[in-house]
Amino acid sequence: MAKTASPRRKPAGRDRAAAGERIVKLARQIVGVVHEREDPFVDIPARTLSNVQFNEKRGIIELLDGKQRRSFFSLLGRRKGEGSQAKKFMQTLRVAEVCKRLIGADDSTSIRDLFYNLKVPIKSPDGKAKELVFYEQNESDPIIEDIEVTVNALREELGVHAENKGNMVGPMTITDNGDRIDLTAVGSGGWGVPSIVEPDVIQFVRHKAKFVLLIEKAAVWTRFNKDRFWEKHECLIIHGGGQPPRGVRRLVYRMHNELKLPVYVLVDNDPWGYYIYSVIKQGSINLAFESQRMAIPAARFIGMSSYDADRFAIPPHVPMPLTDEDRRRAREIREYPWFQRKEWQREIKHMEALGVKLELEALSNKRFSFITEEYLPKKLAAKQWLD
Amino acid sequence: MAKTASPRRKPAGRDRAAAGERIVKLARQIVGVVHEREDPFVDIPARTLSNVQFNEKRGIIELLDGKQRRSFFSLLGRRKGEGSQAKKFMQTLRVAEVCKRLIGADDSTSIRDLFYNLKVPIKSPDGKAKELVFYEQNESDPIIEDIEVTVNALREELGVHAENKGNMVGPMTITDNGDRIDLTAVGSGGWGVPSIVEPDVIQFVRHKAKFVLLIEKAAVWTRFNKDRFWEKHECLIIHGGGQPPRGVRRLVYRMHNELKLPVYVLVDNDPWGYYIYSVIKQGSINLAFESQRMAIPAARFIGMSSYDADRFAIPPHVPMPLTDEDRRRAREIREYPWFQRKEWQREIKHMEALGVKLELEALSNKRFSFITEEYLPKKLAAKQWLD
Repeated sequence: MAKTASPRRKPAGRDRAAAGERIVKLARQIVGVVHEREDPFVDIPARTLSNVQFNEKRGIIELLDGKQRRSFFSLLGRRKGEGSQAKKFMQTLRVAEVCKRLIGADDSTSIRDLFYNLKVPIKSPDGKAKELVFYEQNESDPIIEDIEVTVNALREELGVHAENKGNMVGPMTITDNGDRIDLTAVGSGGWGVPSIVEPDVIQFVRHKAKFVLLIEKAAVWTRFNKDRFWEKHECLIIHGGGQPPRGVRRLVYRMHNELKLPVYVLVDNDPWGYYIYSVIKQGSINLAFESQRMAIPAARFIGMSSYDADRFAIPPHVPMPLTDEDRRRAREIREYPWFQRKEWQREIKHMEALGVKLELEALSNKRFSFITEEYLPKKLAAKQWLD
Repeated sequence: MAKTASPRRKPAGRDRAAAGERIVKLARQIVGVVHEREDPFVDIPARTLSNVQFNEKRGIIELLDGKQRRSFFSLLGRRKGEGSQAKKFMQTLRVAEVCKRLIGADDSTSIRDLFYNLKVPIKSPDGKAKELVFYEQNESDPIIEDIEVTVNALREELGVHAENKGNMVGPMTITDNGDRIDLTAVGSGGWGVPSIVEPDVIQFVRHKAKFVLLIEKAAVWTRFNKDRFWEKHECLIIHGGGQPPRGVRRLVYRMHNELKLPVYVLVDNDPWGYYIYSVIKQGSINLAFESQRMAIPAARFIGMSSYDADRFAIPPHVPMPLTDEDRRRAREIREYPWFQRKEWQREIKHMEALGVKLELEALSNKRFSFITEEYLPKKLAAKQWLD
């Protein structure tokens, strides 16, 4: 099947009412088919590797227009071990129904709560059905993603949230759910980044920031906050406790696009650090649909680079050797289309050649504030980043 | 060896200068022994199961007075596979040295940063030693605990922090590192609880709270915040993202002891939920030393109880079956001395007899706000808790 890229979608914040209308429209189409005494179906954009491409011009991973039909009158699964289309059709409509209900109530819930809300017997004419709509959360999670791509809405618009993780401080005042918060006065703990940060919840009131620094680890962020890096360098510092959750990614995306702030990403020098950066920059294969409202193609990799140990004279006994798993992952990552530029090939191959990884905390071998007082200021001044 | 409980230590906040002085005193003792041309040593309170007891009267797990001697002139390890006493003696002093440095600089750092700071060659007379003080973090972490018990200081006093995780909101104003924060106006994300919450960092300015509600999960806390439970019920709501980190435990301890607020703990009804509650209440075996400044013997278990499914008419298809691992853990937990009261035996055995577990999110089977609007208000009104 020939594939073209999906038309570019509106990159604005969430419009829950519009998403709700698209759910109703989907339901009306299905009812229409039923009235025509035909087999009702839902066409769901395929979230498969073959339906994903890296758009070099836009710099993001995007979904193509391949679709999978889910028919009511089919007891066959699409893949071995998968439930019948009839069952998945029913599940899809039940999840859509809950999302519509959440939108109507201006409410939101977690994916686990949503699962339990639908751990109920299937409706049957005689009311005696014993089978449940869902038995396990790993059945309902992918259906939520199906609804997202089918009605073209982020799950935050539907009212389904992921975990809340991450903190932010810096020279900016926001409102969060009506509360005005000065992010220069939120203490050592910082403001907790919620899982839903769409414009109807979080508004940027004013700021004096020159850039956003996204730090991989909470403990390293604590050091940057303690040393008031955000004050000296007029920036917002944010972390997501490892792989940043959706709330952190969306917030950084919004600050980049709405406030025109450059974004620097600071991660461990290991394959997992490169990967975290790449998800922030291009999006991920699993959630290619969301790249256009999550990915930040202009995000800069400020470190740690595999050249930093040498640049900053880190003694050779400090880095840790790459494990077999690290080496396997490094090979995978350097095959990704978005790491094909020669600077990136050089960066990754240099790590492999050295055979070691360098964590952010390794800079504490010099002294605890080396990272905030020397390492990062020097990297920024020398424009030693990759994009 | 006959054992008596350690004398009760001062339960006040951190006094870093005093902890620093105790490190210096320890070093002076060692130097004194050296001057007498004897074998220098450190006596470290033993953190072994046999040196721990549950003090029924105080309701906490506490360390007894058993000690282990670490001698400089011994190349033998205490256990098979353990490093020599000479090596551990050296490591102990190096970690103590870093802690003293942190105290002197009024600084703090993470356990991983501390490890990297000491991933350095051993000092040797000819300066040619190749061996490192530490190779892996799992060597340095226990030494930090050794220093804690030896100089009788919490690691927060030494300046070593764990992860920061958890959020809080409610009718209280605090200062955090000098910033005044009104916890009724911190939005949907809430204030991020830092890893160090000692009185020199966090002060309670004023409050109108009647109790503290500690919730196991971030997503459930989000529901309580969204429904403004803290406003309707005049309480502080806090979560620690699963097993609460030290910062959350210490903060709840301080609110309980300094503000005289009752503490209610809301966890999943499974063995892991019981365990989370028991750590908050009595402390843990691993960190028995810290119980006296972390444990809250009067903390109340408000739910979920194994009787709640019946009390709240949760349909039988909603709970999940106990796994073999759950059953094994349940048996272990009901053998703990602190779960011997008949109400607790009844509670745990009832879960085992039902053969199911009930997560907090399972209440969403009724409706998403059932937990905040019906479940918890009813439990509190009926005083349906265990202590």
